[in-house]
Amino acid sequence: MYQALTDQKLIKEIHNGGILTPEGFMCGGVHAGLRYNKHDLGMIVSETPSSCAAVYTTSHFQAAPLLVTQESITQEGVLQAIVVNSACANACTGDQGYLDALKMRSLAASKLGFAEHHVAVASTGVIGEFMQMEKIEAGIKRLTIGKRADDAEAFQTAILTTDIVMKQCCYSAEIDGMTVHIGGAAKGSGMIHPNMATMLGFLTTDAVISSEHLSAALKGVTNTTFNQITVDGDVSTNDMVLVMANGAAANKPLNPDHPEWPVFLELLKESCASLAKQIARDGEGATKLIEVSVAGAISDDEARIIAKKIAGSNLVKTAVYGADANWGRIIGAIGQSQATVNPKTVDIALGDITMLQGSTPIAFDENGAKDYLMNDKVQIFVDLHLGDGKGMAWGCDLSYDYVKINASYRT
Amino acid sequence: MYQALTDQKLIKEIHNGGILTPEGFMCGGVHAGLRYNKHDLGMIVSETPSSCAAVYTTSHFQAAPLLVTQESITQEGVLQAIVVNSACANACTGDQGYLDALKMRSLAASKLGFAEHHVAVASTGVIGEFMQMEKIEAGIKRLTIGKRADDAEAFQTAILTTDIVMKQCCYSAEIDGMTVHIGGAAKGSGMIHPNMATMLGFLTTDAVISSEHLSAALKGVTNTTFNQITVDGDVSTNDMVLVMANGAAANKPLNPDHPEWPVFLELLKESCASLAKQIARDGEGATKLIEVSVAGAISDDEARIIAKKIAGSNLVKTAVYGADANWGRIIGAIGQSQATVNPKTVDIALGDITMLQGSTPIAFDENGAKDYLMNDKVQIFVDLHLGDGKGMAWGCDLSYDYVKINASYRT
Repeated sequence: MYQALTDQKLIKEIHNGGILTPEGFMCGGVHAGLRYNKHDLGMIVSETPSSCAAVYTTSHFQAAPLLVTQESITQEGVLQAIVVNSACANACTGDQGYLDALKMRSLAASKLGFAEHHVAVASTGVIGEFMQMEKIEAGIKRLTIGKRADDAEAFQTAILTTDIVMKQCCYSAEIDGMTVHIGGAAKGSGMIHPNMATMLGFLTTDAVISSEHLSAALKGVTNTTFNQITVDGDVSTNDMVLVMANGAAANKPLNPDHPEWPVFLELLKESCASLAKQIARDGEGATKLIEVSVAGAISDDEARIIAKKIAGSNLVKTAVYGADANWGRIIGAIGQSQATVNPKTVDIALGDITMLQGSTPIAFDENGAKDYLMNDKVQIFVDLHLGDGKGMAWGCDLSYDYVKINASYRT
Repeated sequence: MYQALTDQKLIKEIHNGGILTPEGFMCGGVHAGLRYNKHDLGMIVSETPSSCAAVYTTSHFQAAPLLVTQESITQEGVLQAIVVNSACANACTGDQGYLDALKMRSLAASKLGFAEHHVAVASTGVIGEFMQMEKIEAGIKRLTIGKRADDAEAFQTAILTTDIVMKQCCYSAEIDGMTVHIGGAAKGSGMIHPNMATMLGFLTTDAVISSEHLSAALKGVTNTTFNQITVDGDVSTNDMVLVMANGAAANKPLNPDHPEWPVFLELLKESCASLAKQIARDGEGATKLIEVSVAGAISDDEARIIAKKIAGSNLVKTAVYGADANWGRIIGAIGQSQATVNPKTVDIALGDITMLQGSTPIAFDENGAKDYLMNDKVQIFVDLHLGDGKGMAWGCDLSYDYVKINASYRT
């Protein structure tokens, strides 16, 4: 259960930390000219070949860069660089798109002097347009990488599309007496739903861990973090979360038998949850973060299903935007989920304000509720009183600006 | 497959017809004071005890009136009246709500001199508030029923909430040489998704048919009509479609062995599809009807799943609102469906304008596409090239006004 993380004293947040905080990583970003006057091409490089793990969109239409990245990782389980562009998703671009993604990988590998399969490729932007490969090629040539704060910022801005703010985080924990760091950078603001829709997440860590165990850890953590955010219920063709672990922290190799394996899992969870919440908060047009906690479900899985149904409901999202304590819409969202629900035992609260107990409305202070809903972060609590299952989800409100942004994204 | 209906010459539309067009029905509506200055209580009455059938919301939280209506129908399979109110959904109102729904049924039955279980009850409006039973009681007393056009209009307006227009339809067909009519009235504009969310549909027919066969017909037809409309992906606690068949047309009893059974099914489908499309077109804040046709799926079920995914995608809906021919969002919606898809064989067209063939973008006239998207009705065609499965779904665009209406519905 995610809530426990915040009590976890072992995990320390490093303010202003990011993908360059773990030792041995460099990065950079450049304006390749894929869009107007903004960084649009970036790279993360490890000084040494690294273990790696990735999770991908569940869309039937996986974009070309995802196929190429999977080929890279499958070959040896080792990565040393990631090259990313925004503006063009290179999705639904057929054989040409696949060749373009291979070419992008090859250009980055040549520049760095790495084996091609040690390089991953990611893209985000408009679907169905072809890559402008001359600009990509020139951009990769001009791209410089380094270890300073503005190198991190250059990378972080290069991966954004409709995002308003950069997303970064860094956490550390002591493992085998050594300090292990995980840093992260992400993009994503619209099309964020179940399975990492239109989001890219990149994590760097100095932990010593094999690709096999890193993959298992990432998959588990993704289910309770990235897969629990929703902005508009749509999933994209390009979503990917990718971790490189270069071993610079010199801890003993992490695996499920390591006594501090749970600490590493917490560290990874905290990092992914931080990025996930930053993405939800920066949802297109969002004015508020909505955090939904469901308890008393038959299982954790069912609690997460219900939490995400609530966080994803347009009616809940517009009510939160309008600061209207319309808990009937929360009931509506719970009612339509496939999870087990007893229609007579449900409690609902907004923050501290209980509105429904045993499925029966109880009187509450309307003005107090309205005030609470004006906050930057709104918490919805649901207790089903059926079992021990708990889960959380994050979303954002639905505003006029969401419509404005999405009625004219492409043009 | 639904498309065939429109070629069906046997079915005649009766312009300006509605629930009073079939012989032997009366109705009315009144301002009971549940809301400001608008009809809010209505009734449909059959001159004779009628066969009946109903389908209900799949929400875990079925509102009290649905439970009472199910009790009425289960007892004998006969109805003679339906009493409906708007403004208050009588949902999540516990034992008191159930007693209120029983009382509403009993008041209507007394007024009409019918057995209580010959009366059905329906409600729509805000969830979690108790019924103002004194107003209901006084309203039922004052309610008059008749057979004129303004009686039909009084009923049709009494059932509306955020709807802008009344929904009504009437169709007829020759069966056994007799003219059989089906008339309909409906409400519903927000919270319209899969399973008839926040919609009420009432159909009257003079056909001779048992409740058993009418139920089977209604269930099948609902799957391709009412269950294929989506406004905002939310489902409600109160949705119900109810049919009364009084037998005034004097055809031979309809059942699957009757040679003209398919004609009756077409008649019922046409009626339900008409109401469903009127509801989608009148979605909260909608400026356009979106009609999605999917062909080439593994099965009709899968085609319908994909069609509804597309019609329900916020990103597709905002793109249509903004007249942006962003077919990448259609791909996004198809990609995330659970249905079988070959990512290399998909065609997409907007109206006559093909945009994707074999999953590869083809050049099209951007201005022509923009013009097409300014129409009042936008058709999206998808061919998966996998099998013979076909299906349709209907939705509407997502506008600023959707947000405006829903940010402050309750207050």
